Amino acid sequence: MKKYCFGIDIGGTTVKCGLFETDGTLLEKWEIRTHSEDNGSRILPDVGETILAKMAEKNIDKSEVAGAGVGVPGPVHDNKVPYAVNLHWGPTDIAGILHKITGIPIKAGNDANVAALGEMWKGGAEGRKNVIVVTLGTGVGGGIIINGHVIEGAHGAGGEIGHAHVEDSITDVCGCGNSGCLEQVASATGIARLAREELAAKDPSEASVLENEKDLDARAVFNAYKAGDAVAARIVNKFAKYLGTTLSVFATVADPEVIVIGGGVSKAGDALTDIVSRYYKKNAFPACADTPIVLAQLGNDAGIYGAARLVLD
Amino acid sequence: MKKYCFGIDIGGTTVKCGLFETDGTLLEKWEIRTHSEDNGSRILPDVGETILAKMAEKNIDKSEVAGAGVGVPGPVHDNKVPYAVNLHWGPTDIAGILHKITGIPIKAGNDANVAALGEMWKGGAEGRKNVIVVTLGTGVGGGIIINGHVIEGAHGAGGEIGHAHVEDSITDVCGCGNSGCLEQVASATGIARLAREELAAKDPSEASVLENEKDLDARAVFNAYKAGDAVAARIVNKFAKYLGTTLSVFATVADPEVIVIGGGVSKAGDALTDIVSRYYKKNAFPACADTPIVLAQLGNDAGIYGAARLVLD
Repeated sequence: MKKYCFGIDIGGTTVKCGLFETDGTLLEKWEIRTHSEDNGSRILPDVGETILAKMAEKNIDKSEVAGAGVGVPGPVHDNKVPYAVNLHWGPTDIAGILHKITGIPIKAGNDANVAALGEMWKGGAEGRKNVIVVTLGTGVGGGIIINGHVIEGAHGAGGEIGHAHVEDSITDVCGCGNSGCLEQVASATGIARLAREELAAKDPSEASVLENEKDLDARAVFNAYKAGDAVAARIVNKFAKYLGTTLSVFATVADPEVIVIGGGVSKAGDALTDIVSRYYKKNAFPACADTPIVLAQLGNDAGIYGAARLVLD
Repeated sequence: MKKYCFGIDIGGTTVKCGLFETDGTLLEKWEIRTHSEDNGSRILPDVGETILAKMAEKNIDKSEVAGAGVGVPGPVHDNKVPYAVNLHWGPTDIAGILHKITGIPIKAGNDANVAALGEMWKGGAEGRKNVIVVTLGTGVGGGIIINGHVIEGAHGAGGEIGHAHVEDSITDVCGCGNSGCLEQVASATGIARLAREELAAKDPSEASVLENEKDLDARAVFNAYKAGDAVAARIVNKFAKYLGTTLSVFATVADPEVIVIGGGVSKAGDALTDIVSRYYKKNAFPACADTPIVLAQLGNDAGIYGAARLVLD
């Protein structure tokens, strides 16, 4: 067993980097800028350079390094991407390019899938091998882990659970081009949509603290819900019914040991997992009905943890 | 590589048995009765005996046999079942018992999962490694194959896709104890239910050949649909919308190369896969929208093929 590995999480504005011991101890983390100009041609050389620089700084020899894992915002197959819109990339052989620069083994994965792996390794699903991770942020992402491995999928679309169709009545178009996706009702923006709809539909005589909210966002909705606001309760129940029921459908496919919810919306905490669990349990196949739904624990570091884990397989 | 293997598919009334070459050639198949009396205590000894008898008959030595795979109607974990209602079994160590009798390696799997593996090996998904198999019979079963392996699940419930919740308005109770399961609208009995509902709801002035059907079953509905009956078309579209949309949701989890539909209902043929594909495509994540939906090819032999394949891993 080598002693060190790197976890690299490439985002549209910054690249998060972590130096780990192969037992999962994070020794140091840092960030570099993502230079997406010139079709993002500098991004991987910059990553390679920062890895080599860190090895030099710490007196780490190549022979001690298991490799570097890399998470990227795009579909990944065989350590390559066909494109990554946010990085301005066309077809890119991530492992080939980075290995040439660094001389260490490289693996690459989709960023949401890699973050899921991080939560499995050292986060909310530590010690488990069969996990569904849902990330509720601006959109809804996810990663499905079976026997310790993320489902990559035949088209790099494994775990694209934000685009599960859940509602026929939505006519707005989702980022993916369809309408009625989970993302449109369960992301931060989706919850804001449900809030606007509920406020518009409620009886004018019914008071709600949400009427006076300047930022009618997921946070405001959950705060009002926790304070006992009835309109907020209806919004949260709608959201939780969509998410909990859809998770119960996912469980008929993957039957995980645990379901982990992360992303900005998950800052609502136990109030969120409690109500989602209630709807999950109502519709889950009985053998899976007691599967725990827990909060993610690594926050923005899930990507570097998971990327590092990727290279240890 | 050993030359032979056995595939055993234990059902409630008969045990289907197959002797295969390890390249997947079926040399011979036969059946024995399932003796489920005395808590099914004779079933595995009977299976062991028929395997040994076949080896003796064919002059096959133990050293030439890779082993026997066994499909059973129940949740399987680690080659054991906690129970199998149709066989009157409590906790049963299938591999332990059968290995003791036969001396050859034994593996066990859930019957629906094993049938899926059969379709991957030598059926509608031959040559693929990432497959969703749906079996539309009296109920709806399934198997999800990722990288050549069936998802068994944390509670033996991987691929229990018949119990995905798809409809809030159904109040009848499904076999699983919930209401609104895919099985209640997409199995043979589910299609019959949709047919009864549609006939009851239609305008009395609208004629349909289904009004005179004594057996208002899935076969009658598909025959009328193929003959252009408008009421049958509405029934089939309802069924296909439930199934196609749910398959598109499953695809956001597993992103398969191909989706295979088997079971008695699939005898409706291309008319069925065509209409299900239309609803699938409408709601599928764009990267997965062209995933083919094809018919199963092995019929009732899928179980013995898949069981044989199980032991070759």
